Amino acid sequence: MSLSIRNQLPGTVASVTPGEVMATVKIRLDGGQELTAAVTLEAVEDLGLTTGSAVRALIKSTEVSLATGPVNGVSIRNQLPGTVTDVTTGGAMARVKVDVAGGELTSAITKDAVGELGLATGSPVVALIKATEVSLSNA
Amino acid sequence: MSLSIRNQLPGTVASVTPGEVMATVKIRLDGGQELTAAVTLEAVEDLGLTTGSAVRALIKSTEVSLATGPVNGVSIRNQLPGTVTDVTTGGAMARVKVDVAGGELTSAITKDAVGELGLATGSPVVALIKATEVSLSNA
Amino acid sequence: MSLSIRNQLPGTVASVTPGEVMATVKIRLDGGQELTAAVTLEAVEDLGLTTGSAVRALIKSTEVSLATGPVNGVSIRNQLPGTVTDVTTGGAMARVKVDVAGGELTSAITKDAVGELGLATGSPVVALIKATEVSLSNA
Repeated sequence: MSLSIRNQLPGTVASVTPGEVMATVKIRLDGGQELTAAVTLEAVEDLGLTTGSAVRALIKSTEVSLATGPVNGVSIRNQLPGTVTDVTTGGAMARVKVDVAGGELTSAITKDAVGELGLATGSPVVALIKATEVSLSNA
Repeated sequence: MSLSIRNQLPGTVASVTPGEVMATVKIRLDGGQELTAAVTLEAVEDLGLTTGSAVRALIKSTEVSLATGPVNGVSIRNQLPGTVTDVTTGGAMARVKVDVAGGELTSAITKDAVGELGLATGSPVVALIKATEVSLSNA
Repeated sequence: MSLSIRNQLPGTVASVTPGEVMATVKIRLDGGQELTAAVTLEAVEDLGLTTGSAVRALIKSTEVSLATGPVNGVSIRNQLPGTVTDVTTGGAMARVKVDVAGGELTSAITKDAVGELGLATGSPVVALIKATEVSLSNA
């Protein structure tokens, strides 16, 4: 099955914290980073996720924000440092490719943001991804 | 591959409108409804999507809002009418199951919203889904 | 440090309702509006958020929907009335700037939506933002 979701990062479940409706799943990515996903408890049960499960973290490119450096004091759980490898701009939106440890990310942000942040090939960035925007699949 | 993404609606591509970075893809769901997805142009090319392609529309439960009736004059492209079949509440969030033509949707919304809208089994609702929140897979 | 996240609204925490995994945080924006954010409980703890904390609400432009008026009976917690100040359209997407009390919002919606809603400079709109799409930072 091919997916339109551009970002698919392999890793291993480090912990599962269940609530009544939602659950947070911590994943150790193959690139070494830690990632937090907030998914429904039902999904955790259906996928049989437990510590050690091999998974893929799936993140739509429109859910990947970029910062020019690490951000302190923010609720956004996931920050992946990397380097811009390509910028393609359209009339309203832009697509930015970012090399991170263990893979590549695609971010779809406004053209305005690209201009204001001065993003170009070689720019160091940190990709920011809210935990509620991370989906998981069995690897 | 099992996915944590709760909502997977089968359908057929009705049209593709490419931009420079993003593309809008209209899908005729098997349940008869029309759905619009805004995905990267790159994804459209990688998946080889053209009119007639069989696809699945994938929507994370945290991206499904609910209204008590149709909403006019809103930028949200997708409105799927249905009936609530189950409500499970936690401390902050709630999970609502909705029967729609051709399938079932799961919506994760705040507990507050469930209370304010008076949602219970049998409630008629309209599921609202922003086009940028719809991912696609080959069927 | 610069962020691609276009929308950054300053405010003060009015209340925190913790669940097991997620928490809802109500914020009184400096512009006077109330905003609800659904973030992980872990984030609330890490940021030390309590009633009275100064914060910024961060909202990606792709998460801001627009309506031509207030919407009743909807699970979407946040509705900020404003006026369109600029519309820029691309091939598939459009960027709409909206003046709201206390600041400016950027919304990235489909070009189709702009056309159907007849949005232009001066149009009164209501920005709709799902609670799960609001991130928070310490001010």
